[in-house]
Amino acid sequence: MKSRQSASGRTRLGEVGEDVLLASLLRELPASRKFIGDDCAVVDFRGAKNLLVLKTDCVVEGIHFRASTDPALVGWKAMMRPLSDFAAISAVPQFALITLIVPSARSTLWVKKLYRGLRRAASRFDVTIVGGETSATRGPAVISVSVSGFVEKNRWISRAGGKTGDDLFVTGRLGGSLRGKHLRFVPRIDESRWLTRNVRVRAMMDLSDGLGADLPRLAKASRVGFQIGRSKLPLAAGAEIDNAISDGEDYELLFAISPPDRDRLKKAWRKKFPKLPLTRIGKFVSQSAIRDPQLKRGYVHFQQP
Amino acid sequence: MKSRQSASGRTRLGEVGEDVLLASLLRELPASRKFIGDDCAVVDFRGAKNLLVLKTDCVVEGIHFRASTDPALVGWKAMMRPLSDFAAISAVPQFALITLIVPSARSTLWVKKLYRGLRRAASRFDVTIVGGETSATRGPAVISVSVSGFVEKNRWISRAGGKTGDDLFVTGRLGGSLRGKHLRFVPRIDESRWLTRNVRVRAMMDLSDGLGADLPRLAKASRVGFQIGRSKLPLAAGAEIDNAISDGEDYELLFAISPPDRDRLKKAWRKKFPKLPLTRIGKFVSQSAIRDPQLKRGYVHFQQP
Repeated sequence: MKSRQSASGRTRLGEVGEDVLLASLLRELPASRKFIGDDCAVVDFRGAKNLLVLKTDCVVEGIHFRASTDPALVGWKAMMRPLSDFAAISAVPQFALITLIVPSARSTLWVKKLYRGLRRAASRFDVTIVGGETSATRGPAVISVSVSGFVEKNRWISRAGGKTGDDLFVTGRLGGSLRGKHLRFVPRIDESRWLTRNVRVRAMMDLSDGLGADLPRLAKASRVGFQIGRSKLPLAAGAEIDNAISDGEDYELLFAISPPDRDRLKKAWRKKFPKLPLTRIGKFVSQSAIRDPQLKRGYVHFQQP
Repeated sequence: MKSRQSASGRTRLGEVGEDVLLASLLRELPASRKFIGDDCAVVDFRGAKNLLVLKTDCVVEGIHFRASTDPALVGWKAMMRPLSDFAAISAVPQFALITLIVPSARSTLWVKKLYRGLRRAASRFDVTIVGGETSATRGPAVISVSVSGFVEKNRWISRAGGKTGDDLFVTGRLGGSLRGKHLRFVPRIDESRWLTRNVRVRAMMDLSDGLGADLPRLAKASRVGFQIGRSKLPLAAGAEIDNAISDGEDYELLFAISPPDRDRLKKAWRKKFPKLPLTRIGKFVSQSAIRDPQLKRGYVHFQQP
């Protein structure tokens, strides 16, 4: 990892990776560092009692979807990805701006279907599409969606509040998203808002890169280690444990609560969301506990499945 | 024009054009129509006394810049384009989110220079870059910048408030932007904020597609016609009248004021912005006046230079 970070100017992006690149760019942004690193930007808006929440995301043809993918599903995914980041911090999305970058040879029907998917996804969460920008391109289609909304100061959940001993929960089932879920998922906004109204959530994020990549980020932000029961992971139909850890694009919630809240949460959840599993997959442990050989093995195994 | 609008599903985008496509997509968005059509989206933010202003824009390699363009200038332009839309409505930009879509083979040095340009442009107007997203692509680089900020309810200027008889002014000099200005321009935010503090501006926009395309939009939004003195247009060094009308990417302000304010404006402007020309280029006239043969000829000539 060290050598990848000391990227000289001649390094190609493909050799570096997104996390390292972003980290390197953001290091040069001292004034704004405090807003970044979590799923959304959360800022004060002049004279407002709630916090302003901002998030942008994009899907690129050939990377996030295929030329043959139903454009309505592409639109759905393009809108739902940033909305999942709102779920991650228990924020309410309100307004979306859309940038469509589409080759001139593409049919208007394709664009209309794409837009229908964007609109359907937005209206699922009462998000209003307030603006659009289009551009031609000589390359693949790109759809960038930028969402703004709010979160109450006392309900904003970051990744950083986890404590040693906290229980770790995930919603839904993990793995195998590429078989279809990644194009049809519903961000856990309702669940996330319910959680912060009913339980003291200490740290939370959405699972976009897979538990194996995302859980270490949550633990790092909270300055704790973690211990996971691999056999406890809730698996999507047809998925193996390694799929649940590595596939990514689950768009489920991963969150930490204090153990005394555990039973009350489980009971209330079953009543409120009877169709959506909520699974305790493990707990936060002190960072020094990682030196314990068994945990360390577990951690390493987890990291490199 | 009619046939282009009745685009069937098999029409290719290249045959339609951005205005027509956007209009067609937005027609399907009844709930949000009221926010769109002007330069930015302007919305109420829960419990805030100011309006929330949102704008996204993008630059695409091969369309808005060349592969050989200095990436620092590409970054400057990518940030300044949406900021010019803030100038258009007299809003104050505050936060920017950046989406970088870059081929993996691109050097990290290129990306760093690009980011330096983005940062330099943002800091010129105290805009904080609060988040970023990167993606790989198999096509040309795309930089999408999404900006949020505010405008006071009593200072928001739309395109729609112009009246018959209003004087029309432009800032700066028009034409020939592709010789360099399009990569180095400074949006007229300071000027626009000064204007709404000191004059009753009735309608305003920024000139991005050229006076010949943009002035008719301003007039249409205000439901008036216009009369322009071609010989009065302030020309950039080396530019002809047709350049001032058609080149585009001027990023100057075009605005309408009531004639009694004219002399006071000119005098105060010269004192405040001694280096930046302010030129009265013509006036709004009643729409019916367009039936006047002379004006009509002027209008047609103006539209199809």
